[in-house]
Amino acid sequence: MAGDTLTVGVVQCALGGSREENVTRVLGLVRGAAARGAGLVVTPELLEGPYFCRQESDAFFAWAHPVEGHPTLARFQALAKELGVVLPFSFFERAGNAYYNSLAVVDADGSLLGVYRKSHIPDGPGYEEKFYFRPGETGFRVFATRAGAAGAAICWDQWFPECARALVLAGADVLLYPTAIGSEPGNPSLDTRDRWRRAMVGHAVSNVVPVAAANRIGEEDGQLFYGSSFVCDQAGNLLVDLGRDEEGFGLATLDLAAIRRERASWGFFRDRRPDLYAALLTADGRV
Amino acid sequence: MAGDTLTVGVVQCALGGSREENVTRVLGLVRGAAARGAGLVVTPELLEGPYFCRQESDAFFAWAHPVEGHPTLARFQALAKELGVVLPFSFFERAGNAYYNSLAVVDADGSLLGVYRKSHIPDGPGYEEKFYFRPGETGFRVFATRAGAAGAAICWDQWFPECARALVLAGADVLLYPTAIGSEPGNPSLDTRDRWRRAMVGHAVSNVVPVAAANRIGEEDGQLFYGSSFVCDQAGNLLVDLGRDEEGFGLATLDLAAIRRERASWGFFRDRRPDLYAALLTADGRV
Repeated sequence: MAGDTLTVGVVQCALGGSREENVTRVLGLVRGAAARGAGLVVTPELLEGPYFCRQESDAFFAWAHPVEGHPTLARFQALAKELGVVLPFSFFERAGNAYYNSLAVVDADGSLLGVYRKSHIPDGPGYEEKFYFRPGETGFRVFATRAGAAGAAICWDQWFPECARALVLAGADVLLYPTAIGSEPGNPSLDTRDRWRRAMVGHAVSNVVPVAAANRIGEEDGQLFYGSSFVCDQAGNLLVDLGRDEEGFGLATLDLAAIRRERASWGFFRDRRPDLYAALLTADGRV
Repeated sequence: MAGDTLTVGVVQCALGGSREENVTRVLGLVRGAAARGAGLVVTPELLEGPYFCRQESDAFFAWAHPVEGHPTLARFQALAKELGVVLPFSFFERAGNAYYNSLAVVDADGSLLGVYRKSHIPDGPGYEEKFYFRPGETGFRVFATRAGAAGAAICWDQWFPECARALVLAGADVLLYPTAIGSEPGNPSLDTRDRWRRAMVGHAVSNVVPVAAANRIGEEDGQLFYGSSFVCDQAGNLLVDLGRDEEGFGLATLDLAAIRRERASWGFFRDRRPDLYAALLTADGRV
């Protein structure tokens, strides 16, 4: 388990190439971040290929792979062990006839701590994820990594305060959001970048917890991914603020012990009212 | 019930004077906001007097009053009827031997729609509310006003994503947060202003709902209230942005029908996973 200081890295790059090109690019950036002191590195969602959910096509089911024997996961594990860095890996998981949008969390010794399956699945023009992914049933998972207690979520999960709260209730020191988001083919005038950050900044403040999000950049078949990967502290201040088309990584060092003390002092978890929250367990607010 | 357009106002002023001075000042600003078209006006928390919770003193229990026959509430009701404006009123409520931090919601015809009692009660240097207020048991209430479905919460409630979500699940078109917040006597170097706004901006984005917050200004016995009252839209963009020491009001016009359509289109309420949220109904995350 953790020292009480964590240097978290976020990696951002274009991922429109072949699997080999994409994985090589990502792992090269991970190596750079680790050389600068990262203890945990967040990389983008579904990094092996283009964001195939832009359209509904059964051809892409062939891209899924079981966690067992996953060749890219093996490369992540090898590099994690070599560099001593915690390395979540986002991939299209096949589990029998169920397909998930999943995150395998690799500890700093290369061991696989477990898999989280994305709980909230978007659906709309350009983001047709409900066609591909069964909503995950793992629940929200916090992984006890060598770098700290990592609350792992995936992209669309980042818009849901319930997910962030559940992860911090379960002991997360930091929230991680591998992401693939950009322009809206169904609504070209809508730029969701600021909303995207504001939602997660809100989670940071409301839970007194730092947040790290890694997004892809580049154009893929008319869809422009806006990068803007960031790390914010427990007050929502941006510590890492990558651009919309910048390839690279950013690092932020967090004093987890000080943040835990600050979280207790703010009293949000002291003053919560679970006795009044029954409506949150409904779809329509009717208790 | 509502037209589908709402002009919401927020009032901000110093409240360190006598009850008569404070109420007269607030109602004058309400009158100004209504003259400029406000259909609903949010005024600060506990507006009748100085923020007495700065210290623990049994003398202040005498400031509490039952909702029945409350003289200031009667003035709010009369003005609401005269101007045709929805007017929530924040006050120190006595109910037998129970004391609450309450909000009476007055409709545009002067009728009292009901009372919400603050659910989340802070406690710390300068904000000793647990000494005075029993945590409310009303639950989160949405009031069907002539100006729209108003989700009413009070100050510290504004830091809790659960409260915002519950209100929007219950049908709120807009979230209202009367507030009293400023410097921290126990931590003079801490300025909570940006966090305060970021938390509520996060609620706006995550629920696709506009938010209006009204805070006091001025110094009271060494405690400096920072105003910064605002209205943000459903994307978290600031439509009203008052200063730290500005007396006045701000107005924003909201197209509630368009916002409802946008909320549906984003799909957050379609994609929520109540089956995974059981931990939210616990204090420690153990299900």
